[in-house]
Amino acid sequence: MLRGATRRLLLRGLRGPRHPAALAAAAGSAVCIWSQSAACCEPEPTFTAAEVAAHASMADGVWVTLGDGVYDVTEFVRHHPGGDHILAAGGGPLEPLWAQWQVHLTSRVMGHLQPLRIGRLAPADRLSGLYNIADPYDDEPERDGRLGVLGARPFDSETAREVLATAFWTPQHLFYVRNHLPAPRIDEDEHRLTLDWGGGRRRSFSVRELREELPQATLHATLQCTGNRCDEVEPSAAGGIGQIGNAWWEGVRVRDLLALRPPGEGGDGEARDGKPGGDAAGTLHLHATGCDGYEVSIPLEKVLDARGDVLLAHSMNGEPLSRDHGAPLRLLAPGFVGARSVKWLQHLAVRPEESGSVWQKRYYRMFPPWVRDLCDIDYDDGDVPPVYEFPVQSAIVSPAAGDVVTLGDDGALEARGYAVSGAGQRIVSVRLSTDGGESWRNATLLGLPPPAPPEHGRNWSWVLWRARVPVPPGAREVTLCCKAIDSAYNTQPERADYNLRGYLSNASPKVAVSVERAVPRCGGG
Amino acid sequence: MLRGATRRLLLRGLRGPRHPAALAAAAGSAVCIWSQSAACCEPEPTFTAAEVAAHASMADGVWVTLGDGVYDVTEFVRHHPGGDHILAAGGGPLEPLWAQWQVHLTSRVMGHLQPLRIGRLAPADRLSGLYNIADPYDDEPERDGRLGVLGARPFDSETAREVLATAFWTPQHLFYVRNHLPAPRIDEDEHRLTLDWGGGRRRSFSVRELREELPQATLHATLQCTGNRCDEVEPSAAGGIGQIGNAWWEGVRVRDLLALRPPGEGGDGEARDGKPGGDAAGTLHLHATGCDGYEVSIPLEKVLDARGDVLLAHSMNGEPLSRDHGAPLRLLAPGFVGARSVKWLQHLAVRPEESGSVWQKRYYRMFPPWVRDLCDIDYDDGDVPPVYEFPVQSAIVSPAAGDVVTLGDDGALEARGYAVSGAGQRIVSVRLSTDGGESWRNATLLGLPPPAPPEHGRNWSWVLWRARVPVPPGAREVTLCCKAIDSAYNTQPERADYNLRGYLSNASPKVAVSVERAVPRCGGG
Repeated sequence: MLRGATRRLLLRGLRGPRHPAALAAAAGSAVCIWSQSAACCEPEPTFTAAEVAAHASMADGVWVTLGDGVYDVTEFVRHHPGGDHILAAGGGPLEPLWAQWQVHLTSRVMGHLQPLRIGRLAPADRLSGLYNIADPYDDEPERDGRLGVLGARPFDSETAREVLATAFWTPQHLFYVRNHLPAPRIDEDEHRLTLDWGGGRRRSFSVRELREELPQATLHATLQCTGNRCDEVEPSAAGGIGQIGNAWWEGVRVRDLLALRPPGEGGDGEARDGKPGGDAAGTLHLHATGCDGYEVSIPLEKVLDARGDVLLAHSMNGEPLSRDHGAPLRLLAPGFVGARSVKWLQHLAVRPEESGSVWQKRYYRMFPPWVRDLCDIDYDDGDVPPVYEFPVQSAIVSPAAGDVVTLGDDGALEARGYAVSGAGQRIVSVRLSTDGGESWRNATLLGLPPPAPPEHGRNWSWVLWRARVPVPPGAREVTLCCKAIDSAYNTQPERADYNLRGYLSNASPKVAVSVERAVPRCGGG
Repeated sequence: MLRGATRRLLLRGLRGPRHPAALAAAAGSAVCIWSQSAACCEPEPTFTAAEVAAHASMADGVWVTLGDGVYDVTEFVRHHPGGDHILAAGGGPLEPLWAQWQVHLTSRVMGHLQPLRIGRLAPADRLSGLYNIADPYDDEPERDGRLGVLGARPFDSETAREVLATAFWTPQHLFYVRNHLPAPRIDEDEHRLTLDWGGGRRRSFSVRELREELPQATLHATLQCTGNRCDEVEPSAAGGIGQIGNAWWEGVRVRDLLALRPPGEGGDGEARDGKPGGDAAGTLHLHATGCDGYEVSIPLEKVLDARGDVLLAHSMNGEPLSRDHGAPLRLLAPGFVGARSVKWLQHLAVRPEESGSVWQKRYYRMFPPWVRDLCDIDYDDGDVPPVYEFPVQSAIVSPAAGDVVTLGDDGALEARGYAVSGAGQRIVSVRLSTDGGESWRNATLLGLPPPAPPEHGRNWSWVLWRARVPVPPGAREVTLCCKAIDSAYNTQPERADYNLRGYLSNASPKVAVSVERAVPRCGGG
């Protein structure tokens, strides 16, 4: 289950020369919480590295060390969002693994680990001075300072409000980036995309072939992170309204690639109704794997659908993809959450089951509101389906909460924002209210002008909106709220249910501002 | 603009022998309100039939008579939901027209007419004894007494709760019927469906050809009236939770019919990207007309889409269509509101613009909440789009509001209902709450069993659901609420905005019941 890059890093960490400074640099401020002992009054038992090493499997129990602590994580493995990736550190230190997976460097993760502490690591066996962990994040791309950073390693960021409010096409360097691992650096002359239809039928493509020899298509599509607005559902999550952007993409339709299937029979790819084969239930999935090791799958029907518009993109807003956006190739599954649009794409495979990756099976699924803790999750619950399409969404970009807003002569405030729906549905209205939803007025929608309206059910691009909203006379504070309505007349809920990952947060937005009236002009009788 | 049947009826009414008894029979109890005079103290002016007849056009003004009243409806024509159909009665009596369009026989319509009264019709010119209006509703089908009648002429009814709660496939004779006009009686041996691709290319098909010579397809699809649950949005509307049903349909895919296009060029049907032609914006529409004169259109993309599943159905649940369900042929546009699935289908035409019918342009559009009166409607507002797909929907079928519910030994009540979403989205969860939405629990979904799960995005059929919901100890009254979540994670709003037609009412359902506890069993220590 352990991906190549992680395994290589781990082995390098375990075998190479060891320098604590490098480890501390990789881990940053998290070092301070690593050395906390569990608060207890009796002296803890002490274990040697050899004793820890004897617990490296589910059969023998899984012990790990972190700083001076020894932890028995055997029971936690089944709750671990990363699944049995944790076994890579079984019987030894977590530090090398976590240098790669720095999402663990949070007090929340430490909160899960602390109760599992069973003792102290013998001082002679502690890592100090022993490890040299090459920092997997030492070759990250240069990034524009206007991106709002939500997480540094892996890089997680949002589009700035001033960009959201004004740019229909979000410039690539200002477009939110949400990586799961270090950003790979790929030599595009060497890179090949392999496509596996199953049954031993495979083919690989160079980037040049994909760019120059196959029919090219253009797609107008909004990308939105599954966790956009996550902080409104799960306050401990880092997020805002900016994990979204809109671009035009160029590349090859994945259905055109699938049509290049070499002849052959048997395996997953058996021909069935003119489509690549299938299991008994007839459901097929396209697995997509990036060079960083990230992998998810999407239903093959979305890809085969002539109106599904799934693209293998090499270009964004007329420029080649940047490293942070998946250069040289990424998937683009419009109307689906961004997590399905795999970057640095190196492998596509048709399979009769969903991907078994942790991102498919343990993330990017919608857990019900009563699951409040990692240990409450039942990953085998068949009633917890993966997230593909996203629901109708909008945000008030301007004003922001807490702003002091000066009203115009008309007694109204100016508001701006965006709205978009998944599944190809068009936004038909965005409505605003300053009286808690008792009355509403329409915003003006600023989409793409005709004569290029998308076909019915193929609206993948957001609209920006503007409105002048009257404020009740005399009001000094006002809560502005909005809601979008899409072409299936779905609308945003008054409040969104809790889910522990903060996914698909789309409640009707509310922004409380203070109001100043314009100073009357001089003049008159 | 006036359809053939109406025009024929009107002319027959104007020219034939006249019997007041027939008119009264057709109009029923509405006669009593027809003879009300406007309340005023001065004698009204009196007009002769000849004077009225001089006002029969927008240029001369449009006067009509009803009973003893003369009304100037010139200004009202632009607000009239039926558009300029009203001109058919211009300069003369409304009675023959309204015998066909008996939706007018309501106090609400009279409320619109009364303020337009300008005088009395000269007694010698009144209709008494002059008209014989054949009752266009004198040949309606026999109907099952278990249908819940919402309107008699045209027939409008709902599926009974006991059927909704238990039957995954709604039996045809118990399936809601919503007609717009008298139900035609069609000789299926004579009947031909014509298909017009534009540019002079037409072809017609007999029912036998459609049933026996073309490839047949089966479709599992829920039909839901645009006005299902309308009374919850617009309390004066007649409705409940039963304007919905689920069936399996057999027939010919309309895209297969469209592929039979005769060769030719020019007109609306010019070939463009392999599709029948188009206007500058590239948007095409399929107009569908029934033998009753009802007509609407749907976007052609839905029909051409291999995954759109639009069917020309001749059979329902394995039986030929009954008259009330459109025998011998009806359209079935799954995931769209029922109004798009035209019954008694006689004509299909590809056109570059939407149908101009009143049902397309003046009904089955979603007016905003601030439009509270017919005269507030701006039918030319481009921001009031037609309704095609419907939003995520559910209903609590059992218990009903006001029921006295006996709890089980587990302190819980048994609830049942249905849930469905438009646009091919699947229902992933139905959740119930008895504490106003503070906490929720999942219902069990009873859909079609594998191995026939629909493809991603092609879920046209509802699910039935069941749940045992705990009631807070000691509670004597409880409000049960539910909400459905579909595969795009859209959910039902807490409350639905007003719209004057009561369309697409899909707020999270709430049912208040009284609670009785089970009498404890005898026995024990």
